[in-house]
Amino acid sequence: MIENVMHYIDEHSKLYLDLLFKITSQPSISAINQGIAEMATMVKDEIERLGAKTQLVKTDGYDIVYGEIITGKKRTITFYNHYDVQPPEPLDEWLSDPFTPTIVNDKVFARGIADNKGSLLARICAIDAMRKVCGELPVNIKFIVEGEEEVGSPNLNSFREQHPEKIKTDAIIWEGGKRDIDRGPLQLTLGFKGICYLELRCETAKSDSHSMNAGIVPNAAWRLIEALNSMRDTKTGKVLIKDFYRDIKPISQLEMRYLETLDLNEGKLKDNFGISKFNGGLSGMDLKQEFLYGPTCNIAGFYSGWTQQGAKTVLPAKAVCKMDFRLVHGQSVQGVFEQVKSHLYRNGYNDIDAVLLSGKEPYSTDANHPIVKASIDSATEVYGLYPSIYLNSPGTTAMGEFCGPDSIAAISFGVDHVASNIHAPNENIYIEDFIKAIKMTALTIEKFSKY
Amino acid sequence: MIENVMHYIDEHSKLYLDLLFKITSQPSISAINQGIAEMATMVKDEIERLGAKTQLVKTDGYDIVYGEIITGKKRTITFYNHYDVQPPEPLDEWLSDPFTPTIVNDKVFARGIADNKGSLLARICAIDAMRKVCGELPVNIKFIVEGEEEVGSPNLNSFREQHPEKIKTDAIIWEGGKRDIDRGPLQLTLGFKGICYLELRCETAKSDSHSMNAGIVPNAAWRLIEALNSMRDTKTGKVLIKDFYRDIKPISQLEMRYLETLDLNEGKLKDNFGISKFNGGLSGMDLKQEFLYGPTCNIAGFYSGWTQQGAKTVLPAKAVCKMDFRLVHGQSVQGVFEQVKSHLYRNGYNDIDAVLLSGKEPYSTDANHPIVKASIDSATEVYGLYPSIYLNSPGTTAMGEFCGPDSIAAISFGVDHVASNIHAPNENIYIEDFIKAIKMTALTIEKFSKY
Repeated sequence: MIENVMHYIDEHSKLYLDLLFKITSQPSISAINQGIAEMATMVKDEIERLGAKTQLVKTDGYDIVYGEIITGKKRTITFYNHYDVQPPEPLDEWLSDPFTPTIVNDKVFARGIADNKGSLLARICAIDAMRKVCGELPVNIKFIVEGEEEVGSPNLNSFREQHPEKIKTDAIIWEGGKRDIDRGPLQLTLGFKGICYLELRCETAKSDSHSMNAGIVPNAAWRLIEALNSMRDTKTGKVLIKDFYRDIKPISQLEMRYLETLDLNEGKLKDNFGISKFNGGLSGMDLKQEFLYGPTCNIAGFYSGWTQQGAKTVLPAKAVCKMDFRLVHGQSVQGVFEQVKSHLYRNGYNDIDAVLLSGKEPYSTDANHPIVKASIDSATEVYGLYPSIYLNSPGTTAMGEFCGPDSIAAISFGVDHVASNIHAPNENIYIEDFIKAIKMTALTIEKFSKY
Repeated sequence: MIENVMHYIDEHSKLYLDLLFKITSQPSISAINQGIAEMATMVKDEIERLGAKTQLVKTDGYDIVYGEIITGKKRTITFYNHYDVQPPEPLDEWLSDPFTPTIVNDKVFARGIADNKGSLLARICAIDAMRKVCGELPVNIKFIVEGEEEVGSPNLNSFREQHPEKIKTDAIIWEGGKRDIDRGPLQLTLGFKGICYLELRCETAKSDSHSMNAGIVPNAAWRLIEALNSMRDTKTGKVLIKDFYRDIKPISQLEMRYLETLDLNEGKLKDNFGISKFNGGLSGMDLKQEFLYGPTCNIAGFYSGWTQQGAKTVLPAKAVCKMDFRLVHGQSVQGVFEQVKSHLYRNGYNDIDAVLLSGKEPYSTDANHPIVKASIDSATEVYGLYPSIYLNSPGTTAMGEFCGPDSIAAISFGVDHVASNIHAPNENIYIEDFIKAIKMTALTIEKFSKY
């Protein structure tokens, strides 16, 4: 039966591509509210065409498109996607109009085609093919398509809180994701690190003074540097903040096995960054573990005193450091923020203020969940390659705040490749990857209904 | 005989004040070459009127006014001063025209009257009074008056090198200096710290990257902070750079005795800076020793990554730190620069570049030199208070490069008070202090010729 679905997708690939062209021809730039309402309606209509009950759910920002196909089957799968895109600027770097999808060789270029209209359409087309071939779906299906992902999903959390019945599901297929290397294995991502972004502010005197006073007047830059240094072991890079690692969920044996199968392509990665070695000379499993499972303690910015050209003999009274901690499963934004404040207090740095600027919780799906095995097996079949399993991504999304409170299993895979240029000019995907993503979605649904 | 000189000064104070008005009415702003040539000629003429052989010495910049009165006496005293002033801006903060000297109560307001036309005139008037009363001078006198002090004395060193016969002297009375507190003891300054101003530049990758890579990609801010921390003991503030303290001339017993007599007025000093305690809780002799004799390791500026408002999740590939080391007698600009470079190299920070931006050598006059005792005794007599003896000032001047190579004894005292507003609007001196400075100069010459 599912083989017929695969054939049907191949046979109708031109039709599905037309639909992708239609959707990517419509601008939907959330940052400047361009085409947002039109796009929401267009997406609602396409989902309705699948036989779904749909709704434009009001929020304090743009509408969320919600749709559901209740089959009465035991399990429910939800698709999380977004219909908004990044602004296309700088326009003069585009080789074609960003909102006129253009085929060049085996790729299509358009703003938002990779992030994430291609993924959204792959979900819609997969359901279309399964219904056309099988008549009915093996699971209940829900669509949640927001219009504010590119501006930080400010209303997703209140949507979740106000519509618990719409959130209820057995697994979420999350937006985004690419194939490793060129034409390589599909990336499956089961979790994202969180982030705790804060500012440390230090003031040691009422104003800057002449640097001849350095022997006796406290220097804010030195003071803050001292405090920073107390937070981190210089040799190992380990964070020395008390209890920082305490609550982190240990990596399971299964997760370690998945990690072993992953190839980060270290040489290429180093070239990309222009570095000769990774932090602490990391390589192999240690590198993968640090990159994907390790919390970080990053200095995103530091400024104090004279920052222009040349020499000014000043003793700075103020220093500011911006830090972002990437959090892993078990840690929390407020928890780490409190740990930092306690660290400062306990080490006598109570003259340094810590201010929380923003935060997102970390989240990881249990690797034993059937959606994971369904995805792995489907990816292996569709792409002919065992997938790259990222049980945790080093980056951050809304997955934590959306799935975390109810521990909903989620997995992310999509249509992108390594040079898809998301958020950049000449965004593109391979046509082949779009068709494969439709198949991947259908097959995962089919397998998940049985596992 | 010298009593008659003192009387003469009192009797002719109106005349001397008129001369000060004339000199401060003429703008002489080196930064914009306004009135410089006129001022040089005016100063040359006044010195010539003392019976001196004078000369406008060409340099790569503005002329240096040189004058000498060769009496055939055993000893020679040289006056170092400058005829240029700071720009008067911001003009709207002046209560009178900056180049129209204005008496308000017991003070005169004018640009450059404190820094340092008042001092320059005090030297000239002292010689005038001594010649008028005594007929001859007890020493040979030399005047070296440059026009580029306010722009960093760029040509003073080559003047020194090209005119060794003009430099030859037994002691220099240096420009500048004030009375401590209001109407307090005269400050006598015998030395100045030097400065070694450098920039540390760290680059860890080819460009900034997304902060999600912080676990594996080296962060330039962290790297530079580590290196800085290796240079300095957090608890004590001691510099940990090898041999940093090695060549420092120890403080002699005499110098310690002078230091004991000095009152820094700790409470007021803390209030001025707006601090509750000095570095490391220093006080008393320890504070004075650190302030006046301690070399410093100051961070004048630090910048890396995102320094604007809000949160940007960046991993900085570049970090820059501006440092100024104040040097004390025995240390040298090149020496400390090499020590910093060696420190970086020896501690594995060879990826951090050290670039010397500017430097001035430290210098201290031997406290046993007769010019010191002559000045102390004169100050006690003229001001009725034992002077505040700064065997070393925490600041930096050209004294090091000018007096250092030939170890010429130098002492600095002047006409300023604590609120003279040098380099600021409403620059002023007390009329009384101008007259006292004339007497102080004459008396010091008289005593020096005998000690």
